[in-house]
Amino acid sequence: MPDDPPSRLTDAWRFCVGTGRFDLALRRDYQESLALVQREIGFRHIRGHGLLSDGVGVHRPYELRGTRHVRHVFTYVDQVIDAYLDLGIAPFLELGFMPSGLASGGQTVFWWQGNVTPPRSWQEWAALVRATVTHLVDRYGLDQVRTWPIEVWNEPNLKEFWLDADQDAYHRLYEVTANTVKDVDASLQVGGPAISPGSDEWLVRFADFVAERSLPIDFVSRHAYTSGPAQHVPFGVHQTLAPPSRLLEQFATPRRQLRGGPLADLPVHITEFNSSYRPDNPIHDTAFHAAYLAPVLAAGGDLADSFSYWTFSDVFEEAGVPASLFHGGFGLLTHRQIKKPAYHLYAFMARMGEEILARGQDHLVTRDDAGRVTALAWAPVDVTGGPPVDGHTVRLSIPVSSPSGRAFLLRSSVSEEKGNAWRAWCEMGRPASPRSRQLDALREAAEPVRGHRSLPIEDGRVALDITLDRHEVTLLEITPVVDETSPWGDRWDDRRLLGLDEEAAP
Amino acid sequence: MPDDPPSRLTDAWRFCVGTGRFDLALRRDYQESLALVQREIGFRHIRGHGLLSDGVGVHRPYELRGTRHVRHVFTYVDQVIDAYLDLGIAPFLELGFMPSGLASGGQTVFWWQGNVTPPRSWQEWAALVRATVTHLVDRYGLDQVRTWPIEVWNEPNLKEFWLDADQDAYHRLYEVTANTVKDVDASLQVGGPAISPGSDEWLVRFADFVAERSLPIDFVSRHAYTSGPAQHVPFGVHQTLAPPSRLLEQFATPRRQLRGGPLADLPVHITEFNSSYRPDNPIHDTAFHAAYLAPVLAAGGDLADSFSYWTFSDVFEEAGVPASLFHGGFGLLTHRQIKKPAYHLYAFMARMGEEILARGQDHLVTRDDAGRVTALAWAPVDVTGGPPVDGHTVRLSIPVSSPSGRAFLLRSSVSEEKGNAWRAWCEMGRPASPRSRQLDALREAAEPVRGHRSLPIEDGRVALDITLDRHEVTLLEITPVVDETSPWGDRWDDRRLLGLDEEAAP
Amino acid sequence: MPDDPPSRLTDAWRFCVGTGRFDLALRRDYQESLALVQREIGFRHIRGHGLLSDGVGVHRPYELRGTRHVRHVFTYVDQVIDAYLDLGIAPFLELGFMPSGLASGGQTVFWWQGNVTPPRSWQEWAALVRATVTHLVDRYGLDQVRTWPIEVWNEPNLKEFWLDADQDAYHRLYEVTANTVKDVDASLQVGGPAISPGSDEWLVRFADFVAERSLPIDFVSRHAYTSGPAQHVPFGVHQTLAPPSRLLEQFATPRRQLRGGPLADLPVHITEFNSSYRPDNPIHDTAFHAAYLAPVLAAGGDLADSFSYWTFSDVFEEAGVPASLFHGGFGLLTHRQIKKPAYHLYAFMARMGEEILARGQDHLVTRDDAGRVTALAWAPVDVTGGPPVDGHTVRLSIPVSSPSGRAFLLRSSVSEEKGNAWRAWCEMGRPASPRSRQLDALREAAEPVRGHRSLPIEDGRVALDITLDRHEVTLLEITPVVDETSPWGDRWDDRRLLGLDEEAAP
Amino acid sequence: MPDDPPSRLTDAWRFCVGTGRFDLALRRDYQESLALVQREIGFRHIRGHGLLSDGVGVHRPYELRGTRHVRHVFTYVDQVIDAYLDLGIAPFLELGFMPSGLASGGQTVFWWQGNVTPPRSWQEWAALVRATVTHLVDRYGLDQVRTWPIEVWNEPNLKEFWLDADQDAYHRLYEVTANTVKDVDASLQVGGPAISPGSDEWLVRFADFVAERSLPIDFVSRHAYTSGPAQHVPFGVHQTLAPPSRLLEQFATPRRQLRGGPLADLPVHITEFNSSYRPDNPIHDTAFHAAYLAPVLAAGGDLADSFSYWTFSDVFEEAGVPASLFHGGFGLLTHRQIKKPAYHLYAFMARMGEEILARGQDHLVTRDDAGRVTALAWAPVDVTGGPPVDGHTVRLSIPVSSPSGRAFLLRSSVSEEKGNAWRAWCEMGRPASPRSRQLDALREAAEPVRGHRSLPIEDGRVALDITLDRHEVTLLEITPVVDETSPWGDRWDDRRLLGLDEEAAP
Repeated sequence: MPDDPPSRLTDAWRFCVGTGRFDLALRRDYQESLALVQREIGFRHIRGHGLLSDGVGVHRPYELRGTRHVRHVFTYVDQVIDAYLDLGIAPFLELGFMPSGLASGGQTVFWWQGNVTPPRSWQEWAALVRATVTHLVDRYGLDQVRTWPIEVWNEPNLKEFWLDADQDAYHRLYEVTANTVKDVDASLQVGGPAISPGSDEWLVRFADFVAERSLPIDFVSRHAYTSGPAQHVPFGVHQTLAPPSRLLEQFATPRRQLRGGPLADLPVHITEFNSSYRPDNPIHDTAFHAAYLAPVLAAGGDLADSFSYWTFSDVFEEAGVPASLFHGGFGLLTHRQIKKPAYHLYAFMARMGEEILARGQDHLVTRDDAGRVTALAWAPVDVTGGPPVDGHTVRLSIPVSSPSGRAFLLRSSVSEEKGNAWRAWCEMGRPASPRSRQLDALREAAEPVRGHRSLPIEDGRVALDITLDRHEVTLLEITPVVDETSPWGDRWDDRRLLGLDEEAAP
Repeated sequence: MPDDPPSRLTDAWRFCVGTGRFDLALRRDYQESLALVQREIGFRHIRGHGLLSDGVGVHRPYELRGTRHVRHVFTYVDQVIDAYLDLGIAPFLELGFMPSGLASGGQTVFWWQGNVTPPRSWQEWAALVRATVTHLVDRYGLDQVRTWPIEVWNEPNLKEFWLDADQDAYHRLYEVTANTVKDVDASLQVGGPAISPGSDEWLVRFADFVAERSLPIDFVSRHAYTSGPAQHVPFGVHQTLAPPSRLLEQFATPRRQLRGGPLADLPVHITEFNSSYRPDNPIHDTAFHAAYLAPVLAAGGDLADSFSYWTFSDVFEEAGVPASLFHGGFGLLTHRQIKKPAYHLYAFMARMGEEILARGQDHLVTRDDAGRVTALAWAPVDVTGGPPVDGHTVRLSIPVSSPSGRAFLLRSSVSEEKGNAWRAWCEMGRPASPRSRQLDALREAAEPVRGHRSLPIEDGRVALDITLDRHEVTLLEITPVVDETSPWGDRWDDRRLLGLDEEAAP
Repeated sequence: MPDDPPSRLTDAWRFCVGTGRFDLALRRDYQESLALVQREIGFRHIRGHGLLSDGVGVHRPYELRGTRHVRHVFTYVDQVIDAYLDLGIAPFLELGFMPSGLASGGQTVFWWQGNVTPPRSWQEWAALVRATVTHLVDRYGLDQVRTWPIEVWNEPNLKEFWLDADQDAYHRLYEVTANTVKDVDASLQVGGPAISPGSDEWLVRFADFVAERSLPIDFVSRHAYTSGPAQHVPFGVHQTLAPPSRLLEQFATPRRQLRGGPLADLPVHITEFNSSYRPDNPIHDTAFHAAYLAPVLAAGGDLADSFSYWTFSDVFEEAGVPASLFHGGFGLLTHRQIKKPAYHLYAFMARMGEEILARGQDHLVTRDDAGRVTALAWAPVDVTGGPPVDGHTVRLSIPVSSPSGRAFLLRSSVSEEKGNAWRAWCEMGRPASPRSRQLDALREAAEPVRGHRSLPIEDGRVALDITLDRHEVTLLEITPVVDETSPWGDRWDDRRLLGLDEEAAP
Repeated sequence: MPDDPPSRLTDAWRFCVGTGRFDLALRRDYQESLALVQREIGFRHIRGHGLLSDGVGVHRPYELRGTRHVRHVFTYVDQVIDAYLDLGIAPFLELGFMPSGLASGGQTVFWWQGNVTPPRSWQEWAALVRATVTHLVDRYGLDQVRTWPIEVWNEPNLKEFWLDADQDAYHRLYEVTANTVKDVDASLQVGGPAISPGSDEWLVRFADFVAERSLPIDFVSRHAYTSGPAQHVPFGVHQTLAPPSRLLEQFATPRRQLRGGPLADLPVHITEFNSSYRPDNPIHDTAFHAAYLAPVLAAGGDLADSFSYWTFSDVFEEAGVPASLFHGGFGLLTHRQIKKPAYHLYAFMARMGEEILARGQDHLVTRDDAGRVTALAWAPVDVTGGPPVDGHTVRLSIPVSSPSGRAFLLRSSVSEEKGNAWRAWCEMGRPASPRSRQLDALREAAEPVRGHRSLPIEDGRVALDITLDRHEVTLLEITPVVDETSPWGDRWDDRRLLGLDEEAAP
């Protein structure tokens, strides 16, 4: 954490969120989940794979009088983006993967078979990119589309995602694509190389290539994950994790690598991040995970212009149809909108203000423009397998807008015992496809536990001693009290209310 | 409590609920509150005053060619009853008060000025009753309307509600009205005398009168309240309360009084009950109140065919427009749907089964047709002003449908500290008309606190030792676990999940 | 109509709309109606009576220790204004009538008994105004409230609305009120005198008074109606009407009267207008009425800064509870949201553009910023009782954005035979309180009839010869066609589709 | 048509409707379309392909300790069926196609690649069927599931749908499957063989096989289509059609074929029917199509127990992602819920009564239990390409429940010119993916045109002379008028309403 933290909490933590493949957005469960996320969190952009893959049906070759033609079809593209905009979220476009009718080979990635080979015709690829971007500008307007970053492909440094992980071939793809995008309109934003961790050298070579050829580039992007190798069991995986600080280090890498070069001032987007990169690691479902991510959300904005949680929902099919309600999916929400602890971490962040009043290893205190003070605190996590920490304490002295009087504190918490639907689901016997009544119980178990108190203000500050449960993340909302108690207080006496003794009267 | 309790929990507790005057049902806040109540509680009938009062506009005299005529107008009657039926609730009709165009005098009750004098023409009154009942049968069908009890007037034993509390005049009103109703259709249900506590002798005289004249009667009704005299302060009142058993005694009175007489077998409806009869007594807003009512809801069905909580919502104007969000109103819900502890008591009751497995001074255990076991437990209340009881314990041994294995327990609680929005509101400084953000905080503070555990089943039973907070009412939902944990458990190990040590693994 | 019409269609026609008394806005039917109106029309402000009358419960005197105090209660004020803002409409505040606890006499207006006497204490009145305005600024923010015009009282020139129609007393009321409003914040907008037609001299005297005393004033207001004296029958009224041009003349009066004086440049708000001022004149329900109002909406914005249709909904009780679904109420919508022809006139206006391309006695042609061209045309009405005009023709030459090709025309019409629910209701036997199925049929009968055609563009214009039915108002939406017919048209042939002969192929 | 038609209109026309593949039901557009269909039409069951195909993810082989296991996963099955039941529709289960992990070969059908080869293990197939049916019974209850017909495979008589169209192999599939279903519970309904037109001999052989082996069978099923061979163009097809009577003949075939044999009394379900079997034939979008289907819906119930329109929505992907809003899809609704004329035919049918009063070549007259009389009339269609018929007349004499007085007629029509969104879309230039405003215009253009009149009743009948536009289908709803016109009619006079002359007064 920098010595002298910036005084503003930027939107980097909610600039973007990840999603399963593009056409999953046609689903009702997906859209209801996104609506909930937007109501309580409010991301700005959404990014996923598969815009140009066969399931979306954009690239449609046909024969007429013996000649090959291609029709570009936007039936689903428009349905999805219309829905996004209705929900107050805009695309972060990822151009990929390859339509099978344009692919040079048959290699695919994922259960849903995204083709990862280069185009067999660069001209037809450019026509596809041009038609797509032009269509979006026509339909949604240039003012709108120029705010949508356009990223070229996904993780080309991995053989799974790009044939032979051939960097030169990627550079050609970038050149053709970026030039085509800019040809539609020079104000559109294009970037790359969207690399996964473990190939940091790619970015340096990519920067050199772009600079040498004076190619258009408006941002650079990479991903960040902290899990070790996967030990598979059926429908699941065991992995180790590096500590959360390792995520922040990865966020910081692009600026460090580009410092002093021609791309030094470009925005840096971490277009995917999570602990584990596996969609079947139960860590994603746990209270541990929220506490693990809390310091990352609190500090990540110092290091990158955005970091996009991979992904907002378990409506996701890279490893096939999920076999159980909880299955270690990336989602902040399960199918049918059960909130995981990490969901609440994001919802808590959404109640923070823009001005940072204090920040530490286990807390962040902010104030919004209306003067409301909010604090987030979290318990430390141990990735070494040591005994979990119970009863971690945080001591805060919170400045408020009144010099004296009282403040109202509303505290919302998730932890191993609170707001932890995964634990309730385990206790229920891990039902693969819970019944309606079980889903209701899980929804109730998933709610944060709320507490409230009235606290004295002294010298314009409220003193708070917070004790945190195991893996607790807690939101503290503090508001100075405007006392509207009636002027006939001498006639009214709470102590005469049955059940309220002297001490208990509020 | 009877030695040998009946084995079924009847619908008496939810057969009916009270409401503010008829035309308040046109309001959006009212209908949204009722929709919520119906979703989570599900009352069968709803009863309030004012169907025939001026605000509903039914009785409309006019002159034509020098002669007086009366038009009967059902614009609002239909809007309200249409809305009720859409929400799955049916009227419990109360015929009253007197339209000013038909009244023999000017005496009114309440801020909204219901006229409480006899009709100046019995013929015109009978025509009004006939037109109203006939219209309802025409619009909603006889099959529907014959399930709606029709009660003649309200609390005629009080001077405030019936001129001079003249019982003979009431008997005449009953005779004319009951005969008219039966004249529309003999299968309609009519009853009375809807008396308030304190005039028990009225029922005996009324029964004699009805029997002597062989008048139609399908049910008898009375009210039950337990508060002492009011000591007023501006916008509020202090009152003592009798213990909750006093409510049960009042419920039992009609059957006792009528035993052996010709009306002995009639259904008994307690058409209003509450602790205090004042709409400005803050006791209604408290956790104490839920604990006070719990034994009444658990046992009342043994003593009467229904007992109707007065009232479901604070949308209520007998003492004028409420001056503050919390103001001691009768409602289970405040304006804008903040749930009071008593709301949750009713919502907990709505999750109980029909078969009573056990019942005691502080608990009720039931099972539903699907075999789900539910227990309600409550802390004792002290109406003498003694120190409140903290940490009351309840020990239960709950039979479940499996002989062994484990059961999932979901516990939901309200108490002084949990799910108590009134206390949060006091801590906030008692804002008369809270802002949107404050309403959100109150809604969050109003939710029951949930906990869950996995418990061993031994010999087909689950042992529960419950400790109750001050004024706690708690719902325990117990479901035997069908374990779907995967057969590759030897490859999967929760203990390898970070943050879950041996003991903490679910 | 001016010789040289302005080229912009201002928002004057939708700057404000009238409503029944303030507390009716608590109703569900009211709010659903307003939601519909806002979705399809989109007014900016809403103005009605009764903010300070007893039903809203703002002014609440009480005694404490023998002294009179007044509490100001905003429970309902906040519920209503919260709802307005949620629906995208803001108040046009009218300060009145007198709370009974502050009134100097007992005279009331309307079935709902608004007290129309001066305050018995000017100081307590000023305190009431100050508390109300201050509360609104606190809750909604000054930026918001300063956009809400604040009008002092209603039609003080009529004895029904202001004791003895005493202009000097009104001047005092204005002075105290305007000064108090400005004392809360000088940027708030205050105005008057909200006079009815027939007392034009009031405005001159009022202007002199304000100028002499240098009182604050931000706008002047008056009303406009065109009906003759009422001949009453039970639950209805017969009246003659002046031609629609008489409404425009009234709109023009204030600017004419104030020309050259110190108030000459103030905004002029016609804070009420309609044909008949009676809420029981069936003319409001007819197709005639839409055709009558059409030229007023098309031209009124040249003459005043706003003209507010009195009222958007039949949820209205000045003459008591409406006795029948259609009853001659002012509403654009009946109870339960049946659309009257005048509703559609407003909905058609809401689809017009801002740029006026042409305007005449029977038409208005506009273009919006996106280049879409829209025309409104209407049949002439005869207020003398002469035979109605059938088959009026309008010939238009509409400029579009393409020089050639084709344009798509969508035409929507209401007339005696089309989209006229009142006529269907009459044919149904005028059911006072229609059943659900009848309401469905009325809703279907209330929809405009739609037609569409493809028209040739010649020299950048589309020629339209429109024939209008009796009392027809028609909206023509014209869009140049971008032909996406597929390039394999030689292989596809619509004429081979069954049922489509040469001529019928689209 | 039979000489002596049955007097009841059965539910056969709405017993079932077709749908695109099972997992499309997860989509929001699909569910919103189905919700609309259920609100206005109300089908009982829904049938489509693909329950067991890979996209639903039921059959999930995995290895554990070197052994193959299969997990059965119902994540999506439950989401879809939960949604169906919420929408008031139940599955008509079709067991197929083959999971790729169980398939004996690689042959697939459709763009979405349903595998059509027999199982490589009959035991694993039986386990899959058993697990699926058992799961459904567990989750939804036997009372529910026994009302869901279970059909074995789809069109096994076609090589495209079943390897080599091998009837013996199908018989084995039927035997294993039917026995397994009955093994779960004997009360479940199982049937087949779901053959397409053109292989009528299959049913005879199938019946013999089933009877010989005494196999369980609860219903027989087949399909009906009337189109000739396809002449393809890009993204479309031209076909001839047989007249609608040919559909009725196909409906009648199974009963005729089975007459006298052991399966003679079984229910016959036409589990698919339409004119063309191609999802890219624009005939489905036309007004012609509604008129073509009208006599089939009116008479089909005499010949079969159900006939299921293929399909309710254009959300359908057998030929790939639809390339344009209108594309000749089967749907009653397009994507985004534009209603086609055939939709309205079904919605009109949903307003018919159960008692048939009259029936002819161009009309059907019914009465419902409440005495409401409804008539459907349709223009004749010509499938030979002859000139379309304009102005076809139908003369009806409709019995109503009153001997005299007047009746209210509401008429709703679709035809070439009315309620025909496809024509409007053509006039718009056939936009592949219309903008929001264009969709609004299409929705308006898609509404039936409504008219209404008051008609005299003479001798208990209403005489109607109806003239039909080209390809018109019209619904006539006739209700006797209960006249509530006020008794002061001599004081009120409609003729004094402006614009209403003697003749025009309603």
